[in-house]
Amino acid sequence: MPVLLSARLRELGLELPSPAPPIGSYVPVVIEGNLAWISGQIAMLEGRPLHPGLVGAAVDPATARDLARRAALQALGALAAALGNVDRIQRIVRLGVYVAVAPGFDRPHEVANGASDLLRELFGEERRPARASFGVSVLPLGAPVEVEMTAAVG
Amino acid sequence: MPVLLSARLRELGLELPSPAPPIGSYVPVVIEGNLAWISGQIAMLEGRPLHPGLVGAAVDPATARDLARRAALQALGALAAALGNVDRIQRIVRLGVYVAVAPGFDRPHEVANGASDLLRELFGEERRPARASFGVSVLPLGAPVEVEMTAAVG
Amino acid sequence: MPVLLSARLRELGLELPSPAPPIGSYVPVVIEGNLAWISGQIAMLEGRPLHPGLVGAAVDPATARDLARRAALQALGALAAALGNVDRIQRIVRLGVYVAVAPGFDRPHEVANGASDLLRELFGEERRPARASFGVSVLPLGAPVEVEMTAAVG
Repeated sequence: MPVLLSARLRELGLELPSPAPPIGSYVPVVIEGNLAWISGQIAMLEGRPLHPGLVGAAVDPATARDLARRAALQALGALAAALGNVDRIQRIVRLGVYVAVAPGFDRPHEVANGASDLLRELFGEERRPARASFGVSVLPLGAPVEVEMTAAVG
Repeated sequence: MPVLLSARLRELGLELPSPAPPIGSYVPVVIEGNLAWISGQIAMLEGRPLHPGLVGAAVDPATARDLARRAALQALGALAAALGNVDRIQRIVRLGVYVAVAPGFDRPHEVANGASDLLRELFGEERRPARASFGVSVLPLGAPVEVEMTAAVG
Repeated sequence: MPVLLSARLRELGLELPSPAPPIGSYVPVVIEGNLAWISGQIAMLEGRPLHPGLVGAAVDPATARDLARRAALQALGALAAALGNVDRIQRIVRLGVYVAVAPGFDRPHEVANGASDLLRELFGEERRPARASFGVSVLPLGAPVEVEMTAAVG
């Protein structure tokens, strides 16, 4: 008895953004059978990363966490657009959160919770994803957070 | 004629540890059809990373390799717990090993062999996984090695 | 009506290289059902990485982009060898491009286009992959670019 994502979004007062155009030669989403791969998302505003910089330096952890949440919403928006119906999203099976870090910042997992917490709100405790997160040197366009998902779809 | 993992574990005198609690809002394992995604694992002791630090500085390569092996065992332990039966694990299809490195250390693949060699011992030459490994800036809680797996399950 | 990859390779005058031997205890390709996981590839010459070093320092972006293309060809070569028939490759569903970067270089996505553009040439606009790319501290053997793929196969 899967939760209908459209209903949960309404209850939480959330709207999925339109997919951001890829910054290179790839597509936002590939669907094969009952799996979907969603390209790494960075929170964008008017074609530029929101709050570029390294977490622990120009970008504070609370801002980075919010960017992870926004990037996760973008990923779901891209997936919903590709499926044509948000309720075909069954669950996120894998969440990858990559954080561009300044030396000394060792809590990429807390930044990743911005994305994870959103997914828990939307899909419930039972349907939380598996996750990997780590701190990298740099992300496309100098963004502080990138969120990648693999999904099960109906 | 797949090897029974329970039998191999006995032969090698190995025991799978209980899954470590996730350090954030996610689950250790997601199973969908005949695939399973296992969250990134770091070798833990009493809620803290074993031997925190960067490989090539505070952590030497041999220790890091052992941590990769331990994290791989943890991943299998988490998967076995989720499946309810270790013999439902057919093979690991993808192994990701992420190593937090100090400047100048360029052998993340040798650290990754700690995890790979364990899988070869358990599953045999034929069922070794595909692998990706690289050196990152930092891992959750300052751990030196994170191991992520995708598995085929019966 | 999938494009036959063998025909496209001929049209483009491209040849898939023989798979590079893994640098550790893993296999180049795992096939499970209609999915295949291909180990991270670095462009090699005679057992050593081509142009080792960090992008933005010893390695310029145009060279790195070419290395991404070569690594992508290697990945397809490994997959074709594992399948026994290049035309069983239906599409790449996920492309990961990991770039070893010097401080200040923030265009890993442009390096990744070396791999993406090759896939577009071979598979067409419609069958481009989902993608994630980021800049890391170091790659196996000091290589500047690693390319990882997941594929749908027939």
